[in-house]
Amino acid sequence: MRLTTPTLLLDKKKSWNNIRRMVEKAKENGVRLRPHFKTHQSAQVGAWFREFNIDAITVSSVRMARYFANQGWKDIMVAFPANVLEIDSMNELASRVKLHVLAVNVETVEALAIGLKHPVQLWVKIDTGYRRTGVLANNHKDLDNLLQKIKESDKLQFGGFVVHDGHTYKQTDIYAIQTIHNTSVYLLQLLRERYVGKFPDLQLSIGDTPSCSILSNLSGVDEIRPGNFVFYDLTQQRIGSCAFDDIAVCVACPVVAKHPRRRELIIYGGSVHFSKDALPQEDSSLVYGRVVEFTNDGWTGPVNGIDLVSLSQEHGIIKASQEQFDKYHIGDMIGILPVHSCLTADLMKGYMTTDGEVLEHLSGLPQRELVVL
Amino acid sequence: MRLTTPTLLLDKKKSWNNIRRMVEKAKENGVRLRPHFKTHQSAQVGAWFREFNIDAITVSSVRMARYFANQGWKDIMVAFPANVLEIDSMNELASRVKLHVLAVNVETVEALAIGLKHPVQLWVKIDTGYRRTGVLANNHKDLDNLLQKIKESDKLQFGGFVVHDGHTYKQTDIYAIQTIHNTSVYLLQLLRERYVGKFPDLQLSIGDTPSCSILSNLSGVDEIRPGNFVFYDLTQQRIGSCAFDDIAVCVACPVVAKHPRRRELIIYGGSVHFSKDALPQEDSSLVYGRVVEFTNDGWTGPVNGIDLVSLSQEHGIIKASQEQFDKYHIGDMIGILPVHSCLTADLMKGYMTTDGEVLEHLSGLPQRELVVL
Repeated sequence: MRLTTPTLLLDKKKSWNNIRRMVEKAKENGVRLRPHFKTHQSAQVGAWFREFNIDAITVSSVRMARYFANQGWKDIMVAFPANVLEIDSMNELASRVKLHVLAVNVETVEALAIGLKHPVQLWVKIDTGYRRTGVLANNHKDLDNLLQKIKESDKLQFGGFVVHDGHTYKQTDIYAIQTIHNTSVYLLQLLRERYVGKFPDLQLSIGDTPSCSILSNLSGVDEIRPGNFVFYDLTQQRIGSCAFDDIAVCVACPVVAKHPRRRELIIYGGSVHFSKDALPQEDSSLVYGRVVEFTNDGWTGPVNGIDLVSLSQEHGIIKASQEQFDKYHIGDMIGILPVHSCLTADLMKGYMTTDGEVLEHLSGLPQRELVVL
Repeated sequence: MRLTTPTLLLDKKKSWNNIRRMVEKAKENGVRLRPHFKTHQSAQVGAWFREFNIDAITVSSVRMARYFANQGWKDIMVAFPANVLEIDSMNELASRVKLHVLAVNVETVEALAIGLKHPVQLWVKIDTGYRRTGVLANNHKDLDNLLQKIKESDKLQFGGFVVHDGHTYKQTDIYAIQTIHNTSVYLLQLLRERYVGKFPDLQLSIGDTPSCSILSNLSGVDEIRPGNFVFYDLTQQRIGSCAFDDIAVCVACPVVAKHPRRRELIIYGGSVHFSKDALPQEDSSLVYGRVVEFTNDGWTGPVNGIDLVSLSQEHGIIKASQEQFDKYHIGDMIGILPVHSCLTADLMKGYMTTDGEVLEHLSGLPQRELVVL
């Protein structure tokens, strides 16, 4: 295969191993794995999960839910506060799949109760410390109110409580991650005790890639929803969720200019390919990606003395030691591990596996298709 | 028109005024306007420029050049160090349009000289201070070498010298911008003097939106290549390139959750819509967008006391004063001026004008089309 422009390479074997490890961990803990598909957004990568008997998935938009419903997925959670403006799309989906949506506010529940034409699983989003969105776990007044409204509706079926511990992403210490996770599970269990009388089938759902990757005990809940683990990235390696060798995606970028005096390579690969997510270094400089070398069947771990240190729209600047600088020539392809694989995949809009297979990404499909129901 | 998901609104009247002002300024200065189309990447927005008799354009990739060539543009500069791996695509393009490409290194010139089958205008990229890429203006040894190689090729026609003063983006002072611009023009003119004997037709090309918007004297060069001015954004307003009222794009986002205690609104609109480019505030906090109010035919200037302060993949967090917080309800659409309109447009993949017309963006077209020649 001859690549000529920035290309997102995907090592299927690494990705399969990442999936297998998470499937096994879920099984050992007796919890359902409902993987988040927003990381890959790919029909084909999604199909790999079927080989592991996964039948329930998480997505982050109604549009993504429709995409995967069209691929035959039948049990889909949109893990995002329900956008009531999309009620028509939700109805269309709920007519053909088991649809799960989230609410934080009573106004959302009321709008859904009025607008829905088919039964939907409604989960309440709980904030156990991340402070992005969700009802605080001790806010019983709002929770009582929300659950009462849900009970009054014949279309809304209470699914249970959902947490996303995004604050684990700021940690690099297993004990900090364990504390965050255990706190959330404890708070969720208190909520179960409080409401299980009224809703005997309520479930507890949690999931972020750091906790699910690092901790061995994931019990105490009904399901986990990690997503990034399918590819991992430099951020997850820094956190401790994976080894460099588990990172399953790598961007191949053409070298387009060389600056010998300052030992900088200019690559065709910028913020429209990688996103601007960066990894702060000890000296407070930023790294936007780490360089690997291609091998016969994939790539090596990151090489020392050479880093992607700056991005503009299409240009990237790689700073290198003399030894590394001398290795690269104009017209070479250089491999770069991404800082945040979800955003990089969304921008790259598709994959090429190391076996030369082209896989789609939802963001690479014509927009037209997505507007029409 | 009823919007239900994040939508990039475009005020055609504002954009036309921005184009008209730049066209008039170029005319007054006796320089060719070769607008950079990477900001809009839209066939329809491109067509607006034709109404102003623009016939030469700038793009940042071969793929973008092909897209606009397919729209009938005949004089296209790819303002990016030539990616020699795309020689086949360059040949296809050069067979049907006047193609201009850039080189920084002699290796690039050599590869082009071997691979090209049709005449191409080759410009040398000069670095007059930005330090991203380009030959330093005083590096006569490399320049002599480059120009000699160009002269030896029967396919390469020397276009002249190209500069992009990206460091004006870091300035907010008209005198700093004037100094940067005048330095570049002076250095370009020295190069013209040095090489005009050998290349009597060599031209000088410069262009960044801050200089071209703020300075009234743009003479001394042959062409200017600003791009962002077609929309402008919060970054350009901060620099002084435009007024808030000139910003021609605005992202409409659904409100999906409310947090009354901390007066935060959660919107459906995250880094996959806006990009992570942020505007640092005086207290060193970051703003990812400013909130406007919709009017009958567009939107107001930014409202005080309400800002987009945080982004994750699909979530945005808006922090508001009590008065502003109380104005918004779940299911409302909220208007947000972007920090960097080029990246936002690339992510949003299409536009809706305030008249309800849907305009395309190259990144919203099926990827398939783009791989095939």
